[in-house]
Amino acid sequence: MAENNQKRPFDVLNNALNKNVLIKLKGETEVRGELASFDVHMNLVIENGEELKNGELKRKLGVVLLRGDTVVFVSPA
Amino acid sequence: MAENNQKRPFDVLNNALNKNVLIKLKGETEVRGELASFDVHMNLVIENGEELKNGELKRKLGVVLLRGDTVVFVSPA
Amino acid sequence: MAENNQKRPFDVLNNALNKNVLIKLKGETEVRGELASFDVHMNLVIENGEELKNGELKRKLGVVLLRGDTVVFVSPA
Amino acid sequence: MAENNQKRPFDVLNNALNKNVLIKLKGETEVRGELASFDVHMNLVIENGEELKNGELKRKLGVVLLRGDTVVFVSPA
Amino acid sequence: MAENNQKRPFDVLNNALNKNVLIKLKGETEVRGELASFDVHMNLVIENGEELKNGELKRKLGVVLLRGDTVVFVSPA
Amino acid sequence: MAENNQKRPFDVLNNALNKNVLIKLKGETEVRGELASFDVHMNLVIENGEELKNGELKRKLGVVLLRGDTVVFVSPA
Amino acid sequence: MAENNQKRPFDVLNNALNKNVLIKLKGETEVRGELASFDVHMNLVIENGEELKNGELKRKLGVVLLRGDTVVFVSPA
Repeated sequence: MAENNQKRPFDVLNNALNKNVLIKLKGETEVRGELASFDVHMNLVIENGEELKNGELKRKLGVVLLRGDTVVFVSPA
Repeated sequence: MAENNQKRPFDVLNNALNKNVLIKLKGETEVRGELASFDVHMNLVIENGEELKNGELKRKLGVVLLRGDTVVFVSPA
Repeated sequence: MAENNQKRPFDVLNNALNKNVLIKLKGETEVRGELASFDVHMNLVIENGEELKNGELKRKLGVVLLRGDTVVFVSPA
Repeated sequence: MAENNQKRPFDVLNNALNKNVLIKLKGETEVRGELASFDVHMNLVIENGEELKNGELKRKLGVVLLRGDTVVFVSPA
Repeated sequence: MAENNQKRPFDVLNNALNKNVLIKLKGETEVRGELASFDVHMNLVIENGEELKNGELKRKLGVVLLRGDTVVFVSPA
Repeated sequence: MAENNQKRPFDVLNNALNKNVLIKLKGETEVRGELASFDVHMNLVIENGEELKNGELKRKLGVVLLRGDTVVFVSPA
Repeated sequence: MAENNQKRPFDVLNNALNKNVLIKLKGETEVRGELASFDVHMNLVIENGEELKNGELKRKLGVVLLRGDTVVFVSPA
């Protein structure tokens, strides 16, 4: 399958390492924190993570491993 | 499996690179912005992205990586 | 697995190229327009596409790439 | 994996070719019509198809390609 | 992966051939009838099948092919 | 992928054979009974099974085959 | 696919062995307890597990095997 674009989607994750990201998950949960690692399944580790619901802080999570198949989007802050 | 059509679905993404697209995701979320890259899983990177809900701007996202399996459709502006 | 039928499901898509089709997606969305291309995943490109909700025109989409795994059915007009 | 039954599930589809079938899909949609073809993914083509909702005719579809992964059951009339 | 149990889950289906079974599907549908065949995907053919909703007979289906990935459980009568 | 833990998740199932387990399924259904067999897909056979809804006995199932992909958790009694 | 990060997501699970973790599952269920083992599918075994609903203790589970594909996130305490 042709991909004539130089950039690749996972570059966004590489560039966001150790920086703040906002992650929207399936359901109504969002997580905000520093991206510490990721893999090809889009499993993500966030440090200093906070769980948000409707934009409000629900609780502090510290380190959290997010399963890739629940991710809707990842946006660097 | 026979495919006697010359054009292929992903050509739409190739042609839309660096242009505005509207993306409908599973659930009620939509994202609008410039398509910066994509891969064979339909993972998409949008720049100057805006999250919409019921057609209204919900928040500005800037750069955002959308996971392919949450995509319903992509439409160039 | 035995398939003693001569016709194959994707023939419907081949025969519908450049013709009007109605596509029902998971959720309550439907899209109507001309089938411009498809692939083995049932990813579809529609031209002059219109998004329908409850049978009413919701908005004109023009060109739109529909992700195969959100398709419920495709019916030539 | 042992299968000591002589009959196989897809025989039902082979035997139903060109006959009326009722198909229940995920969600609340049902389709009734003549089975014209199928494949190993349980993608189905129905001719003279009718879409039903809560047992009532919603609309006539004519030819319709149903995506296999939305099928709940297929029952010959 | 170690499996030190002699019996295997599909033995239940082998033993239930030509006997009455109750099948719970995703959503609120249940089907009751004689198990006529099955395959490794847990696709099932039921004869003299009846569709139940909330434990009440909704309609008689006769022969019905149930798609494996909609099955929650199968219980011999 | 590194796994430096000696125990493996399926050991729980091996150790629970012929003992009582509680199984939570997707949706609101739970099943309780003796674990008779399982496979690598987490398909489970329960004997003397009881279906529970909101913690109340809904009906006795006797032998029941639970499809692995509907399992949320399995807990030995 | 490039992964220039040294840490890997599953390291979080390795480091959390025998320690308390909070697990959010699809739906509204959460489980808290000690992580006893895991595999590459993110199947998890928790000891001294407690099921929570809306942050309240629903019941004590003791040992519980959680199926990986129902996991949303895992956070060490």
